[in-house]
Amino acid sequence: MLNFDYYNPTRIIFGKDIYKRLPEQIELVTASKKILLTYGGGSIFKNGVYDEVIKALEGFEVVLFGGIEPNPEYDTLMKAVELVKKENISFVLAVGGGSVIDGTKFIVSAAKYEGNPWDVLLRKEGSVFTDAIPFGTVLTLPATGSEMNSGAVISNSPLKEKRTMGGSFAFPKFSFLDPKVIESLPKRQIANGITDAFMHTLEQYLTYPTDNFLQERIAEGILSTLIEIGEKVIENPKDHVLASNLMWCATMALNGTLRAGVVYDWSTHMIAHELTALYGIDHARTLAIIAPSLYRIKSANKKEKLIQLGQRVFGLETPTEEMVVQKIESFFHAINIATRLSDYTEAYEGTAEEIKKRFEERNWLAMGERGDLTPDEVFEIVKMSY
Amino acid sequence: MLNFDYYNPTRIIFGKDIYKRLPEQIELVTASKKILLTYGGGSIFKNGVYDEVIKALEGFEVVLFGGIEPNPEYDTLMKAVELVKKENISFVLAVGGGSVIDGTKFIVSAAKYEGNPWDVLLRKEGSVFTDAIPFGTVLTLPATGSEMNSGAVISNSPLKEKRTMGGSFAFPKFSFLDPKVIESLPKRQIANGITDAFMHTLEQYLTYPTDNFLQERIAEGILSTLIEIGEKVIENPKDHVLASNLMWCATMALNGTLRAGVVYDWSTHMIAHELTALYGIDHARTLAIIAPSLYRIKSANKKEKLIQLGQRVFGLETPTEEMVVQKIESFFHAINIATRLSDYTEAYEGTAEEIKKRFEERNWLAMGERGDLTPDEVFEIVKMSY
Repeated sequence: MLNFDYYNPTRIIFGKDIYKRLPEQIELVTASKKILLTYGGGSIFKNGVYDEVIKALEGFEVVLFGGIEPNPEYDTLMKAVELVKKENISFVLAVGGGSVIDGTKFIVSAAKYEGNPWDVLLRKEGSVFTDAIPFGTVLTLPATGSEMNSGAVISNSPLKEKRTMGGSFAFPKFSFLDPKVIESLPKRQIANGITDAFMHTLEQYLTYPTDNFLQERIAEGILSTLIEIGEKVIENPKDHVLASNLMWCATMALNGTLRAGVVYDWSTHMIAHELTALYGIDHARTLAIIAPSLYRIKSANKKEKLIQLGQRVFGLETPTEEMVVQKIESFFHAINIATRLSDYTEAYEGTAEEIKKRFEERNWLAMGERGDLTPDEVFEIVKMSY
Repeated sequence: MLNFDYYNPTRIIFGKDIYKRLPEQIELVTASKKILLTYGGGSIFKNGVYDEVIKALEGFEVVLFGGIEPNPEYDTLMKAVELVKKENISFVLAVGGGSVIDGTKFIVSAAKYEGNPWDVLLRKEGSVFTDAIPFGTVLTLPATGSEMNSGAVISNSPLKEKRTMGGSFAFPKFSFLDPKVIESLPKRQIANGITDAFMHTLEQYLTYPTDNFLQERIAEGILSTLIEIGEKVIENPKDHVLASNLMWCATMALNGTLRAGVVYDWSTHMIAHELTALYGIDHARTLAIIAPSLYRIKSANKKEKLIQLGQRVFGLETPTEEMVVQKIESFFHAINIATRLSDYTEAYEGTAEEIKKRFEERNWLAMGERGDLTPDEVFEIVKMSY
């Protein structure tokens, strides 16, 4: 087992009829009755979440900031930073999915920062966030795990940049997880959420063995649960058992538990990001496009874990690596996630060359759990995914 | 899945050569260079932990308080409370096992309390701990999980009382877990630690299904890991893989993860406590004495989970409840934990009557996950355990 740090101070309030506890949780953090509520494209006005939250917040002065994009934009968020300063806000409540929560992590950190926040995202020397205005979340879409971690991805379209930020200061103080929000999601988004959680787990599992037996079993537990409930929750999103298990799996998949003492490999994410950049394909779907090919090309590196996955999760007695990759593909297909680039765009020719070029231009040094993924292999992986 | 709150702000620093990071972690909490170091019977002076910790704490003024008992005593701990006040201590480092850590939770809470701390443990109206001096831990014995939770059990022998305390204020700020400490433990204590972690898990698992699929799988993951490593780690405590997996399982078994969204049943603990009180048998061993009989008497209540345990953890295709209980007993025997009261005392006659009487005198209302365990059943369980 590798050395590790584990730290996660976010309080989770999980279940039915929980929003009435919002005031109690906010009052633990701030004495002010004035809060900023951040949201995205406005689905919270249609699915009833806004009404329920506002009802719970009776007695609070709620300043609204909406319009945070699916890939939250620096320019948009900076308007919220101004608002926070102007209104002297001491607590922010993010009501939304991963993008709203990621965007809010930036807002609360930038609002406490003296210099140019973009310098921090560029990792300019001496530019770091060290503090943030406290914030909490009401999750409306189980997928990214942002509700219980301290990381965020921020886009800057004018500069064609996508940058990460995070740190201990950026954990939500609390997150409210009511599985009822799944009821009103389009089937497509539920499938994306399942895929996101599944792939977050695989990125921290399909590497080489580091003998953290418990963490491996927890990862296998998330994968087995997602396989058990995946198709059913898409068909029956009002089923509390199915919805609550999906919601909790998505949170647990990226709250720091799985990475304790293991090696991880986020290269599927890194390659897949380029497909979203090029073609606007949903993030989760780009992961399902890239992962099978990556596992095939790097199967020698991931052999032991692929076999273990086949045996423990897919119930195969004597699996080959290829049999396990096919099982992963079959799971994606079962939840209506297509796994070929050509399922999403006709203009796929040249994609492998383009992505290889992008990686080379960035002076790519090391990708994969052994740091041995080459630009040529990236080319092969993308080409195999057509 | 039941509604739940999950909150655990303790930072875990896990692995080899970690104590050098003690100053960094203390400095995150206090500016003072004067700390109190609490410990137990002095094993830390023999196993090298004290020397390593003191070396890491160069530049700190370390006030020592030793002699915290295996069942930490109120009178002893109150002497530490006086010392904390006299020396104006702003940070306490507990170096020890569960008893030292439990005792330290009381010390740091009582030191911030104006009234009589015993009133708090008696739950007298208006008497509550709400704050504590910050503290961290260096764990020397994997077993109780106290290093990553906010609960403690405090004894008051003159009053023949054993009382619990806890709350958000009583989480350690950090805990250092170096599996190397297992090397120097007597085999008997390693076996006790395995049993403790195993039983903490079963108490939160062997109830009735609440459809928290992931939490069930995490519990099964801890049990499977303990079965996989149990015998081996007793034989090879210097093996880092075995030692680190035991240490992490023991922490995860009682850090709040397993109880999220499920029902639990601590009645094995409650009955077993009486055996320690009557005969001074090690806590872990009393659990192994009571559990099999309790599962037999209450097998109808626990049927679904017993069968699931047999299938998923013990690999039985079509188990009966009795087959699974026998597997649990076999595991205890494999790690040299005897499971009969008569293995520990010749004077066992009358124990069932005595324990039944004790429960009746306390106006016992509800025990077990369905609140239906009767004093007569307690009698049957203890008698069956002779």
